[in-house]
Amino acid sequence: MGRITTRVSVNHIRGAGRRRNLDNVVVEQPMELRLNGEPIAVTMRTPGADFELAQGFLLTEGVIGGRDDVRTVRYCGGASDGVNSYNVVDVALAQHVPVPDLSLDRNFYMSSSCGVCGKASMDAVRLRTRFPLVGDVLGISATTLAQLPDLLRSQQKCFDSTGGLHAAGLFDLDGAPLVVREDVGRHNAVDKVVGWALQRDRLPLSETVLLVSGRASFELVQKAVMSGIPMLAAVSAPSSLAIELAREAGLTLIGFLRGETMNVYAHGERVC
Amino acid sequence: MGRITTRVSVNHIRGAGRRRNLDNVVVEQPMELRLNGEPIAVTMRTPGADFELAQGFLLTEGVIGGRDDVRTVRYCGGASDGVNSYNVVDVALAQHVPVPDLSLDRNFYMSSSCGVCGKASMDAVRLRTRFPLVGDVLGISATTLAQLPDLLRSQQKCFDSTGGLHAAGLFDLDGAPLVVREDVGRHNAVDKVVGWALQRDRLPLSETVLLVSGRASFELVQKAVMSGIPMLAAVSAPSSLAIELAREAGLTLIGFLRGETMNVYAHGERVC
Repeated sequence: MGRITTRVSVNHIRGAGRRRNLDNVVVEQPMELRLNGEPIAVTMRTPGADFELAQGFLLTEGVIGGRDDVRTVRYCGGASDGVNSYNVVDVALAQHVPVPDLSLDRNFYMSSSCGVCGKASMDAVRLRTRFPLVGDVLGISATTLAQLPDLLRSQQKCFDSTGGLHAAGLFDLDGAPLVVREDVGRHNAVDKVVGWALQRDRLPLSETVLLVSGRASFELVQKAVMSGIPMLAAVSAPSSLAIELAREAGLTLIGFLRGETMNVYAHGERVC
Repeated sequence: MGRITTRVSVNHIRGAGRRRNLDNVVVEQPMELRLNGEPIAVTMRTPGADFELAQGFLLTEGVIGGRDDVRTVRYCGGASDGVNSYNVVDVALAQHVPVPDLSLDRNFYMSSSCGVCGKASMDAVRLRTRFPLVGDVLGISATTLAQLPDLLRSQQKCFDSTGGLHAAGLFDLDGAPLVVREDVGRHNAVDKVVGWALQRDRLPLSETVLLVSGRASFELVQKAVMSGIPMLAAVSAPSSLAIELAREAGLTLIGFLRGETMNVYAHGERVC
């Protein structure tokens, strides 16, 4: 439980030379998420921070809105493979939270951490946030933003040894890191960050910046918006739909944040 | 329809300097997939090769096994957003193909192109291939493999202008490119390649190598195995579960294929 990397034997080839090596690879395992005992999603994830992942996923999918909406979170036995009970997490909702009617709206909740994955129809793709960003215009300086990628990298525990992990980090407006999470799935890394905040009753995440180590897709923008995060910065490229949603939702979207250069694609009024 | 990139206005910051730019970004749009008229999945994809994507997805999910299993593929109107009918693709199955019973086994087919996304329980994660790899040991030389990343890059149309596209390329054992597809989603790029082959009745894809521009996850290994592709090479890192499935299924798995160096994680007997 919670192993992030593992060692495998590998045949390393360099030109005509070959030798056996041991290589560090990132651990990927399925996690089944149950809601009140009923399986609703499987995501491929890197074990560790599973409770954060489960709750962050439920929040960014709109099922829960905060810590009070959750009664218990626990690992359970009875996984269908019968082997590893640490790969099944059950979230019991508090009594006041409506249980999603899976029989009527079954596709809405079939998502993995991809955000839209598993949704059967277009209607299910766009979610409505509980934490609108309108009016939240507290700023952060470009100089502070420029320091975040190095900070993220320095907080990552495993990236350099495997090359296979995505990272997501939450920072305050002074550029101080609040939490960093890594995962084989980029959406999972963000859900873990959001779940961390939910467990500490810190939602909505106003006055924070979310930095991701890769690209900014629609789903990552949606997860930020669902959590009340006013700014998403990505080390790599955004997609057209990510930009569109950011502009609509009032989110500041930054791409190609590398050293002192960056592109601001939406709501630059927060960058001062 | 089919636009791969678009231009957006952006505020480019370099230190204290700021200027407005036009930036090329990759287009991301939802595509709703219907099976015999019923919505079964939405994937975020880059428009273009949508029919390949739809059929490749159905093949790698085990719904169809070849071209004869498909009666028609067409765009349809009536998308729920009422705007763009090129974002809804309907696949009608041939009469002899059993229609998956979504009411009984609803979670199995709720996947997006992520492979496991949308599956609600562990049982649904591992699929059974129609094209077992046992006995298929035709080889390719390390020298030929070393040339593939440059070939893939030279066939990519848009990567350099957006930085946001994943590529997947299929090569024969002499290293000649058969098809290259790009997409904002890495699983989609592979599904498009497989759908291309299905449309040409080239399944199973024995005696080919699939090269992907990013990492090798469980889902990508599974898609290769489902298509009868005996070798998957990735420019970046594999995950632990990708290696495990490759070893079990008889797939040759190569990671960190960069210049003349590469790591062979499974079934190196095909690399000569």
